[in-house]
Amino acid sequence: MQSFIPSKRTLMGPGPSDVSERILSAMARPTLGHLDPEFQRMMDEVKGGLKDLFQTENRLTFPVSAPGSAGMETCFLNLVEEGDTVVVVRNGVFGDRMRENIVRAGGIAVLVDVQWGEAPDLADVEAALEAHSEAKILAFVHAETSTGVLADAEALCKLAQAHNCLTIVDAVTSLGGVPVRMDAWGIDAIYSGSQKCLSCTPGLSPVSFSEKALDKVRARTSPVRSWFLDLTLVMNYWDGEGGRSYHHTAPVNALYALHEALVMISEEGLEAAWQRHQTTHTALAAGLEAMGLKFLVDADIRLPMLNAVIVPEGVDEASVRAHLLAAFDLEIGAGLGPMAGKVWRIGLMGSSATPANVELCLTALADALNRHQYPASGAAALAAAKSVFAA
Amino acid sequence: MQSFIPSKRTLMGPGPSDVSERILSAMARPTLGHLDPEFQRMMDEVKGGLKDLFQTENRLTFPVSAPGSAGMETCFLNLVEEGDTVVVVRNGVFGDRMRENIVRAGGIAVLVDVQWGEAPDLADVEAALEAHSEAKILAFVHAETSTGVLADAEALCKLAQAHNCLTIVDAVTSLGGVPVRMDAWGIDAIYSGSQKCLSCTPGLSPVSFSEKALDKVRARTSPVRSWFLDLTLVMNYWDGEGGRSYHHTAPVNALYALHEALVMISEEGLEAAWQRHQTTHTALAAGLEAMGLKFLVDADIRLPMLNAVIVPEGVDEASVRAHLLAAFDLEIGAGLGPMAGKVWRIGLMGSSATPANVELCLTALADALNRHQYPASGAAALAAAKSVFAA
Repeated sequence: MQSFIPSKRTLMGPGPSDVSERILSAMARPTLGHLDPEFQRMMDEVKGGLKDLFQTENRLTFPVSAPGSAGMETCFLNLVEEGDTVVVVRNGVFGDRMRENIVRAGGIAVLVDVQWGEAPDLADVEAALEAHSEAKILAFVHAETSTGVLADAEALCKLAQAHNCLTIVDAVTSLGGVPVRMDAWGIDAIYSGSQKCLSCTPGLSPVSFSEKALDKVRARTSPVRSWFLDLTLVMNYWDGEGGRSYHHTAPVNALYALHEALVMISEEGLEAAWQRHQTTHTALAAGLEAMGLKFLVDADIRLPMLNAVIVPEGVDEASVRAHLLAAFDLEIGAGLGPMAGKVWRIGLMGSSATPANVELCLTALADALNRHQYPASGAAALAAAKSVFAA
Repeated sequence: MQSFIPSKRTLMGPGPSDVSERILSAMARPTLGHLDPEFQRMMDEVKGGLKDLFQTENRLTFPVSAPGSAGMETCFLNLVEEGDTVVVVRNGVFGDRMRENIVRAGGIAVLVDVQWGEAPDLADVEAALEAHSEAKILAFVHAETSTGVLADAEALCKLAQAHNCLTIVDAVTSLGGVPVRMDAWGIDAIYSGSQKCLSCTPGLSPVSFSEKALDKVRARTSPVRSWFLDLTLVMNYWDGEGGRSYHHTAPVNALYALHEALVMISEEGLEAAWQRHQTTHTALAAGLEAMGLKFLVDADIRLPMLNAVIVPEGVDEASVRAHLLAAFDLEIGAGLGPMAGKVWRIGLMGSSATPANVELCLTALADALNRHQYPASGAAALAAAKSVFAA
């Protein structure tokens, strides 16, 4: 066994995205004890940075010490009690994972199914809420990473509020790349991931909870089914009055990285970051369309940071990805579930959302497609993208 | 919000321990995608290194993508099904956390209580197993981090086997510092942490499961209460036949760090690492005793890597720790639970188990004690420690 020296890739899959040298260097700073006063001051700054990012004043805003799936589980295992009915919108892999979470928590999932690649239908959601007046929660994915669809979170939250439901929102892919306005929209529980538009290393899951959500947790009559994710315990660690109490050992160096990612976002400005994601997406789309490629998702509900591109007939999608990796050190993503083999997922997340990455991706993809009997002009694609950046 | 530059501390608390430059540099290498073939090869090496460390041939040996508490929960939520009786030995904080885990999993905990600072009583455990022939599992902590007591894991496993019980063993603090022989002792499920004797950054929890343990998981009639930690899903990610299937996004850079920690242990040799922990402990103990300080735990059941030292009468333990941190950048740990204010916990874990650290700790502690009206000769303590190293 010898030291592992990874290749330097350009990461344009569904996450992780490119991690900057600044964040990697921050991660390599000396490890502090997790109860060290210096570390606890840094934890406070991380909480503040996440509040800005979620656009919330919620006191309980912190990164779960595990990947996004654990952030999802923190929301569901705490808010869903045995027998609770939850209306859940399923228009991709992550909506289905929400259903799984509801079942594990002992709840009853009422599904609002939507065709993959389409946005949640507000009328269908409203009908489900009306048919299930016993429902306590509406859960949906803001940005479906498996398809590249953006949901109208504001409208869905309004529906939930009109039916006295709390909301649990998956913002894993949206946070930092498109507007996420927790307080303005009235989201009650939200989770995200460090490795998407924050461009931090994978492994942490920022979450936030409204007072209404915490009231439901406090009113539980059965213990949360996870000790590690039990908010009543975790909140004393992240938000203890008069000093934090030991719960688990925080992933100290990973939190340094998240802290640096938050510094970088605050330097750029959140609105500028949203704009950058939009512009690079527009340029990538122009280039892909110049090569005759089509998107899975209609333009008006398309995510800027996750581009599901239909694999042209007769092209072996896996061997295209293998060529991109081998010849260009470029990673793009495969389709998930029913989309496997049918789409590529090209990420433009965080530090990966740059003109240079867009151009590399178009050049490399044109090269790969030409080797797979699909005629594509890399020059035309590049020109189309450049004209967007020049505008 | 500005970049965070931590102080360089010497970490001699209950973990995290000192993380070497080698491991920090490994962590800062470029992030790969979690499905990149290079990364998957590295995952295989990590599994192999962990098998060596646990002394097991178990196929399902991998690091949970979260801290030790989540490794504990992985064992309990998977192996304990609703209504299962589990005999659990409680001689400190972590035995009680096991009980919490059993309850969250829907199981029934039968407690074998032991005074804090003492080792599990084999006769009491045997009596509990006999009184509860319905018990399916015996759970105990190998190295109690809250007190510094080593349990006789081999004998406890024999008792469990004689009563047809599986075993769940907490090896968070023992792994890499004292012998842990999973297969020879017949442990069925084990969990550890990255930030103790492996001296890696905190955030990962190595675990391993015997075939008997997996048979119990496969025979479950109710779903595991956590999606994130469900072994039937996780095992396809870490141990998929014919390619790994996506489960969650692995904490890529944290795994680089664990990989490097495993390389370092294989270079030193596991037995040499055990010996180093023992020698530094003997030297520290000689120095502390030369200052008139006493241990909480009898020498024959004392952990080398976690030294619970009784705070002398009249000394304010917190202000001693504050002085060590402020004047020497040295962290030692406080007492937990009923031991709060009564003991210090001095860690000699992994890269922290060195002669230089022992000498720093003795010098600093003598200085702090002298400022707190407790006469202590740092010179005598140093001489006592040095004579151990010279031997």
